[in-house]
Amino acid sequence: MSPDHPGEALGIVAGGGSLPRIVAEAARAAGWRPVVVRIGDGIDDDWTGYDGGAFAWGRTGDAIACMTASGVRRLIFCGTVSRRPDFRSLLPSVRTLLRLPAALRIVRGGDDRLLRTLTRYLEREGFEVLAVQEIAPRLLAPLGPLGHRTPRSDEIAALSLAAQAARQLGELDIGQAVVASDNRVIALEGIEGTRAMLARVAELKAGGKIGRREPCALVKSVKPQQDQRFDLPSIGVATIEEAATAGISAIGVTAGRSLILGLDDVIAAADRHDIALVGLDEAVPDIIASGEHN
Amino acid sequence: MSPDHPGEALGIVAGGGSLPRIVAEAARAAGWRPVVVRIGDGIDDDWTGYDGGAFAWGRTGDAIACMTASGVRRLIFCGTVSRRPDFRSLLPSVRTLLRLPAALRIVRGGDDRLLRTLTRYLEREGFEVLAVQEIAPRLLAPLGPLGHRTPRSDEIAALSLAAQAARQLGELDIGQAVVASDNRVIALEGIEGTRAMLARVAELKAGGKIGRREPCALVKSVKPQQDQRFDLPSIGVATIEEAATAGISAIGVTAGRSLILGLDDVIAAADRHDIALVGLDEAVPDIIASGEHN
Repeated sequence: MSPDHPGEALGIVAGGGSLPRIVAEAARAAGWRPVVVRIGDGIDDDWTGYDGGAFAWGRTGDAIACMTASGVRRLIFCGTVSRRPDFRSLLPSVRTLLRLPAALRIVRGGDDRLLRTLTRYLEREGFEVLAVQEIAPRLLAPLGPLGHRTPRSDEIAALSLAAQAARQLGELDIGQAVVASDNRVIALEGIEGTRAMLARVAELKAGGKIGRREPCALVKSVKPQQDQRFDLPSIGVATIEEAATAGISAIGVTAGRSLILGLDDVIAAADRHDIALVGLDEAVPDIIASGEHN
Repeated sequence: MSPDHPGEALGIVAGGGSLPRIVAEAARAAGWRPVVVRIGDGIDDDWTGYDGGAFAWGRTGDAIACMTASGVRRLIFCGTVSRRPDFRSLLPSVRTLLRLPAALRIVRGGDDRLLRTLTRYLEREGFEVLAVQEIAPRLLAPLGPLGHRTPRSDEIAALSLAAQAARQLGELDIGQAVVASDNRVIALEGIEGTRAMLARVAELKAGGKIGRREPCALVKSVKPQQDQRFDLPSIGVATIEEAATAGISAIGVTAGRSLILGLDDVIAAADRHDIALVGLDEAVPDIIASGEHN
């Protein structure tokens, strides 16, 4: 999506990780004027050169006032918010006390529910909430094998099993990531996040609970009922490195509905670790088993 | 099940944990003569006073010869086998080399698949494989609230959500344990086991990723397609202690299809930690929500 006029403000509600920066740069390149509202894990990140500010939990009202004052009408959520608010930080502000019931509702779910609640709230306040991929469509994962290596048949079996389990989890609105081998599911992501799950798999491997030659695949899959405006599954170079440490040799993401943060770098990292990286067809999950797009 | 004659041999293929001892004592009390074959995590346990022996991976043949020589015709599996065999330990024995293909198949699955494969193998060799509950029926979890405290309404919601997720996982033949709060699934058991999953929940709690007042429930649920002869979900005093450390305030197990190892001690531990412990009705998962059996 292009701005209605050059320099139109775009609110970027920025959590942690590398995604907010990628989005802000893509937005600038497309003619937007990013207004970066730092929250959650991203609150201490350096955004010198961008309008905006940092807002602790409970300063929702101030963050909204900042965006309004900067002319923001459209905004976007990106980045991670992994810690619940510290309720002591909610106390000092009078505005906060007025907002407290809304903030409490936001806190109680996973990331996804938090963002859904926050989005509904902001829409009621008159903002339009956009999807990351409307600003930076090149982030969406392409279909098919992405690096120099296509998955072997045992890795295809592992990818299929992991994708099946991820879909099952997704229907329950649980995590998006699963590690499986060709004949068993090894790890399922709860609220701990993909990084912690991969660290667990590395421990299981080191502890001899995963066979040395057992082919392990990571799949990050979109939830069937996913609101595409936020919380699309994403991978970056760090994911590849963490997967390699865990002994994973194949990675699948939902093509067109998940984000790859820095495609060239991610592919280079996968190639360096000899990991088969694949964009999976969500509609035809077994196409990978037939090898048709190899 | 009683022995055909007093002193009939009963093979107990004993992994780790407290279950094998409980089963052996119940068997003795019922008139069986236990022959304890130590494997996996139980290989170093002290079974002074019992016939049998310890058998490293790859000595399957010797274990079978030991049971046959001791007059075993019926046997039972119990206890944990959490590490895959060290293949170097398979090499020394000639018998092992002959058994290797079977052993390899055994190794590749989770506990469950391992035991299914081993059971089929032993049945082909002429043994009858019994269920733990045929020897020690008092291990089966009763229905309804078991301790002094019935779950509060928010804990009932958490138990229901956890039970729903556990069923979904069970259909995929994945783990049996889930931790949920009243509005989100927090952790799912993969191959790491319940103890490791509860340690993870304790960390998430300590790290502020679980609300201080968020009601958390643990459910261990039987898989729909479960072969009842092995790998029934079980809890013991250690499970209660670990759950308490993780901040869990309600625990549900499938009544009649899961094992409570030391019911009186487990209830006492739950009461001590003010945990609501409940036997769930598998057929009517929502009965707990209606509170009908409280």
